[in-house]
Amino acid sequence: MILYGNLNSGNCYKVRLLLSYLGVAYIYENIDAPHGGTRTPEFLAINPVGQIPVLKLDDGRVLVESNAIMTFLADGTPYVPISAFDRAKALQWMFWEQYKHEPAIAVARFISFYAPEREGELPTLHAKGQTALDVMEGHLKGAAWFAGTGPTIADIALYAYTHVAEDGGFKLSDYPHIQAWCERMAEHPRHVLMTDMPA
Amino acid sequence: MILYGNLNSGNCYKVRLLLSYLGVAYIYENIDAPHGGTRTPEFLAINPVGQIPVLKLDDGRVLVESNAIMTFLADGTPYVPISAFDRAKALQWMFWEQYKHEPAIAVARFISFYAPEREGELPTLHAKGQTALDVMEGHLKGAAWFAGTGPTIADIALYAYTHVAEDGGFKLSDYPHIQAWCERMAEHPRHVLMTDMPA
Repeated sequence: MILYGNLNSGNCYKVRLLLSYLGVAYIYENIDAPHGGTRTPEFLAINPVGQIPVLKLDDGRVLVESNAIMTFLADGTPYVPISAFDRAKALQWMFWEQYKHEPAIAVARFISFYAPEREGELPTLHAKGQTALDVMEGHLKGAAWFAGTGPTIADIALYAYTHVAEDGGFKLSDYPHIQAWCERMAEHPRHVLMTDMPA
Repeated sequence: MILYGNLNSGNCYKVRLLLSYLGVAYIYENIDAPHGGTRTPEFLAINPVGQIPVLKLDDGRVLVESNAIMTFLADGTPYVPISAFDRAKALQWMFWEQYKHEPAIAVARFISFYAPEREGELPTLHAKGQTALDVMEGHLKGAAWFAGTGPTIADIALYAYTHVAEDGGFKLSDYPHIQAWCERMAEHPRHVLMTDMPA
């Protein structure tokens, strides 16, 4: 199994964090996505859409979309809730993450790192991202995790860009429940940092 | 079971179409979302995030996010692939739909219907939407359906806004494989139109 990713991408970190939780061995290929690495003929032969992360199975089949890759890897493990309703709740948060959270919080971070010419977009992205963080804070006032009774793929999906939201100009100290949840996430015995290169 | 939706919303149509396929009875409450119907105190008490569709179960529990609602309703039916890989492929297309397809194709349609003051956004949305339609057309050149061997929740998710893309200024005649797939979708014996009010 090969994971094509980039160390600074939260979407790729989701998959690496889950694989670490699961103790599953894999080959990691770092792709220089911010500087054209997903646009080379070699990479487009693997994923014609030109995005990371990509999971390539040993039989050659390929999965993309970070959250879909996680559902595949976590199937039947404690990181997917057992009850059908809680499984749907996990997916509810994961769809929300891709629609309302990532397009604001990850994009603000991307602009801060790689695209200073787009900084005019930041005020709108900050407003949208704060709304998303408000929704998370509201949920975490009444629950330790996003779906079920322990950390699941929904928590991993949301943790990836939330814990580095300050890179994009958000203030996590305004969200004490989110901060406490980030600390719970980092206490997992198999936690790895976003910047840890896989062995 | 109560579905809160709006007849002109593709995200709500997804759930109505699936419920029709499944032959499941439900109560339908039409919410006038384009004119503030999701911002009333009554509606915000059901879904504090203020969006439709919302599925309220008989025990009072609530699910949101159209694609997550579909995974819950379709669990264990022929509309979710049996193999773990194909299930993940269905979710891959559904996450892609919410990230790359809906924000361009549904938003262009929304502007055309309800927000003429935003028409300056249309050229960018048309370019993004055409890229999304190109990806679908490319897939459908080699496959009849998006995941597995028959129509699944991935096809329903993509059909909802694709089949009415012309409302937002897209030309489906440029995409013959998408047109043929739309016709296959409409041949389902329990097909309902987007404009059909549930009984």
